[in-house]
Amino acid sequence: MQKINGRSEGVFVISVTPFAENGDLDLDGVEQMVDFYRSAGASGLTILGMMGEAPKLSQEESTSFATRVIKASPDMPVVVGVSAPGFAAMRDLSATVMDAGAAGVMIAPPSNLRSDEQIQNYYSQAAEVIGTETPFVVQDFPLVTNVVISSSVLLRIFADNANAVMLKHEDWPGLSKISALRAAEAEGAKRISILTGNGGLFLTEEMERGADGAMTGFAYPEMMVGVTRLAKAGEHDRARDLFDAYLPLARYEQQPGLGLAIRKHILNQRGAIRSARLRSPGPKLTQQDFGEIETLIARQTKRLSMLELNEGV
Amino acid sequence: MQKINGRSEGVFVISVTPFAENGDLDLDGVEQMVDFYRSAGASGLTILGMMGEAPKLSQEESTSFATRVIKASPDMPVVVGVSAPGFAAMRDLSATVMDAGAAGVMIAPPSNLRSDEQIQNYYSQAAEVIGTETPFVVQDFPLVTNVVISSSVLLRIFADNANAVMLKHEDWPGLSKISALRAAEAEGAKRISILTGNGGLFLTEEMERGADGAMTGFAYPEMMVGVTRLAKAGEHDRARDLFDAYLPLARYEQQPGLGLAIRKHILNQRGAIRSARLRSPGPKLTQQDFGEIETLIARQTKRLSMLELNEGV
Amino acid sequence: MQKINGRSEGVFVISVTPFAENGDLDLDGVEQMVDFYRSAGASGLTILGMMGEAPKLSQEESTSFATRVIKASPDMPVVVGVSAPGFAAMRDLSATVMDAGAAGVMIAPPSNLRSDEQIQNYYSQAAEVIGTETPFVVQDFPLVTNVVISSSVLLRIFADNANAVMLKHEDWPGLSKISALRAAEAEGAKRISILTGNGGLFLTEEMERGADGAMTGFAYPEMMVGVTRLAKAGEHDRARDLFDAYLPLARYEQQPGLGLAIRKHILNQRGAIRSARLRSPGPKLTQQDFGEIETLIARQTKRLSMLELNEGV
Amino acid sequence: MQKINGRSEGVFVISVTPFAENGDLDLDGVEQMVDFYRSAGASGLTILGMMGEAPKLSQEESTSFATRVIKASPDMPVVVGVSAPGFAAMRDLSATVMDAGAAGVMIAPPSNLRSDEQIQNYYSQAAEVIGTETPFVVQDFPLVTNVVISSSVLLRIFADNANAVMLKHEDWPGLSKISALRAAEAEGAKRISILTGNGGLFLTEEMERGADGAMTGFAYPEMMVGVTRLAKAGEHDRARDLFDAYLPLARYEQQPGLGLAIRKHILNQRGAIRSARLRSPGPKLTQQDFGEIETLIARQTKRLSMLELNEGV
Repeated sequence: MQKINGRSEGVFVISVTPFAENGDLDLDGVEQMVDFYRSAGASGLTILGMMGEAPKLSQEESTSFATRVIKASPDMPVVVGVSAPGFAAMRDLSATVMDAGAAGVMIAPPSNLRSDEQIQNYYSQAAEVIGTETPFVVQDFPLVTNVVISSSVLLRIFADNANAVMLKHEDWPGLSKISALRAAEAEGAKRISILTGNGGLFLTEEMERGADGAMTGFAYPEMMVGVTRLAKAGEHDRARDLFDAYLPLARYEQQPGLGLAIRKHILNQRGAIRSARLRSPGPKLTQQDFGEIETLIARQTKRLSMLELNEGV
Repeated sequence: MQKINGRSEGVFVISVTPFAENGDLDLDGVEQMVDFYRSAGASGLTILGMMGEAPKLSQEESTSFATRVIKASPDMPVVVGVSAPGFAAMRDLSATVMDAGAAGVMIAPPSNLRSDEQIQNYYSQAAEVIGTETPFVVQDFPLVTNVVISSSVLLRIFADNANAVMLKHEDWPGLSKISALRAAEAEGAKRISILTGNGGLFLTEEMERGADGAMTGFAYPEMMVGVTRLAKAGEHDRARDLFDAYLPLARYEQQPGLGLAIRKHILNQRGAIRSARLRSPGPKLTQQDFGEIETLIARQTKRLSMLELNEGV
Repeated sequence: MQKINGRSEGVFVISVTPFAENGDLDLDGVEQMVDFYRSAGASGLTILGMMGEAPKLSQEESTSFATRVIKASPDMPVVVGVSAPGFAAMRDLSATVMDAGAAGVMIAPPSNLRSDEQIQNYYSQAAEVIGTETPFVVQDFPLVTNVVISSSVLLRIFADNANAVMLKHEDWPGLSKISALRAAEAEGAKRISILTGNGGLFLTEEMERGADGAMTGFAYPEMMVGVTRLAKAGEHDRARDLFDAYLPLARYEQQPGLGLAIRKHILNQRGAIRSARLRSPGPKLTQQDFGEIETLIARQTKRLSMLELNEGV
Repeated sequence: MQKINGRSEGVFVISVTPFAENGDLDLDGVEQMVDFYRSAGASGLTILGMMGEAPKLSQEESTSFATRVIKASPDMPVVVGVSAPGFAAMRDLSATVMDAGAAGVMIAPPSNLRSDEQIQNYYSQAAEVIGTETPFVVQDFPLVTNVVISSSVLLRIFADNANAVMLKHEDWPGLSKISALRAAEAEGAKRISILTGNGGLFLTEEMERGADGAMTGFAYPEMMVGVTRLAKAGEHDRARDLFDAYLPLARYEQQPGLGLAIRKHILNQRGAIRSARLRSPGPKLTQQDFGEIETLIARQTKRLSMLELNEGV
């Protein structure tokens, strides 16, 4: 399988982890889920990320799931989250999934890092631990990690480590960070791929500022695929029309903690996964939540059909 | 002036603090700003909140500004943020503004509170410090305060303190909290006013779940006024139509840190304040930011006129 | 092997994890280390805790190490830290070590817990996940976990879960917590074992307030053993004499982050472990550090001999 | 009065703020307190720090108290804490106290700073706000501020701002930071004064590594004065003898939150302040606490007399 590199682009969907109603890992549901993401136009998949309930899997389950997804996805590169409190576990998981055919790994900083030097050193050590043949994604998600990485530190991480090839951009606010990184590139810094997160809530602006696509898990990946394509074609107004149609639901899905339950509920309804089950500890949706989701989907469907009438998007 | 109480409703706009280009407090611009908020349909004003740059004012400036706003707003109740690291400063500011005619005060928890007991005790002490004649708003904003207040603790705070009459609801996600508080009320808990924050991003759902209005500072308060009125009239679909038209910009304004600069830029353009100046430390907008705001406003204007054509909102 | 229960007492030494100079787990050094702790008078051992570099082990290494220690310690109960970001990993590790003969497991709260209800629910779920036959230790260490557990919440956790039998008391300050828990017990609350942490820095006061012993890893476990025994015999003044002799070094060892490197250096010098190696990321001692440790040990030795002359401790 | 500079040395006692039994500021008790600190050998005083209950004073009280202390201390330089959430309040308080004769001000970083660049910019802005004629102390206390400042960032702050002349060193662990700063000085970096905090718990090692003295508030300032003098005279072993005699109590006083109540209780007993009152919110000592303090003081007294017999310190 082809590895990710500094020119990778498109939508790498952050995949959920499917469980059966009894809480077991639903390995037999993997193909169906991968097919769903493929049909939606995904360029790649990212698994075992924070939103994939990775910490709720045992090590053995993580490996089985990763291997199954990679096997089911010979045509789409699969990035695997290998963030871990220690380097031994990171090395093991990284080696296992790269052997199985992963396209690269993703590493978030541990939450005790504070100073620029600590962050830089951590990534240098991690880059060495996974090995120079393994390309990796830097996950910059301060809302959850509590680690603030300035643009200048990001640039040094990418300059120092040849295998650092992609940024999962999830700072909030983070638009100026994209602009700063692309400005540095224009002046000679290494070309890196920037895929954006935050549930796609700023995708239109992010694309206009130089992102290469998205790496997030909104339950309608076709929105992100469409916006990305239109933006690359320079059709920013049409990209925004499409984006706006999905925004009320995307906003609703982007509730910390609750969001994954909403996402799995919708993915289950859309046939992507066979159960909406989350492993505990995790939130449960109420009848009011279900009602709001239904309303939002109904309005979204209506608006999309009006859009089609008007524009043939 | 009438004080706030457990039945207060409508939109209490979180007011910005206007500065002149040189950074001085623009006291002479206060009437113009209050007029703007009144014209937009505000039911009340909230000043010296976190988004009002309160911590950047000296104590003397805080008092001058509060007094001026209260004087300029004989018809709209004014709530004043009096959160402080210690009770002496809280007592002083609270007494001063209530004497000047404020309708109540707002208190956020200091960020070192953790256990339920600590939070409850803090509010009991604060309630006593400001005096039983001073009604107050509990500000529940964990994203910024880092203090998590469960629904049961909120209920105890409101039950224990007669002058606790309103919740500035700003948990995220927080929809289930509104439902829980209203369910408790249905079973006999004290009636409290719930006004919601978070830039209005969940206002439609919040109104349907029982909120009495909004207390936040989106630069187009007329959106919140309109949504609130339509929701109260049971016209939820039309409320959502209106909401959706403003959502792309509301989303853009809701960027932590940067948001206030965006808000002041728009308010300045709309004639509400005479300068978009923020006191340092604070972010500066770039040409790209200005461009994005312009695009979003243009699209919003267009969509609102289509809405008027269709629905006469 | 006997399991821990609400009457367990003495010193459960928090064991380090021994590595070889090349960073490999030094499994063959386990017997020597266990012998050292036994000779020092330990009543039990606790492994894979936060100070045991547990997060730096792969899952396989954790299991191998735990099994080896349990086998080497047929006479001393071994408690195993099983804190994990998710319940699947916790269940797996817990089952494995209990099968191998562990005396119980220890569980620290994940750092995102805030409200009383969240903490209580978490422990109820965890208690069920590990199974009612597995007694467990609640680790209360807010300085590191950032989770504040009030005395009343601790009491509810112990009341709700029959297999919650011991508190690793590591709040700071925490003396009043011991008093509160013992006062509750006097009024009928379940008897629990309280073993204290924080490097033993408050052991004299903790014993006088009702602790049953210590669970911490100071490189001179004989201090804790001696203080515990003297305190139980009511010889508080002699307990303090002994304690004071070790205090300058105990204080020095209690430096966050650096402390483990100091501890391993001393344990290596004392023949407990074959290398002072820490796995990265971890601090390195400097010549100045080594010099200070040498000075402190020399003074400690001198003072202990004076104490023996005077008191025959 | 002479201002602080990069060669200031000795013990700048962190002064408590004295309250009357009814909670009022005890301005008339200021002279008595200053006399106590002077008699103990203090070289200077630091007021309105975090441990001085500064945040519990109104702005007017802060000014009255600072003025009174400065007036009572014509012979000892007085440093005033002016940390504030915004620059307007910082500028006001700084100007007022410098006019009244303060020797300098102290500034801690606001807790939202994260990256090196943010910290450096903040201090450049603050240095300008207070004015180039006002020398200031950088307070580096991550345990409370949650801001981690690396040695290289400290060096840049001192290099960039001529009026940055002193470090209140309170990182923990922080011994290597002193060594790093002194090593940089040996290679040409600006000479700064380093006074250490943390209740004096590491004073012996800190002095040996190049500190110029202490800036902390242990209730027996004569310990810090003695250790500082002996260390400067190269009498490190005698310095440690003295230090060790006070260590059990110093350790007990260094309990976060509770520590200030213990300190005020002892200072009240020693005649330094007329009431041990803390303003709420604050902890209350129990009978057990009082008993432990009494035991520790009795043992300390006994040990000090033995020391005098032996060494004539």
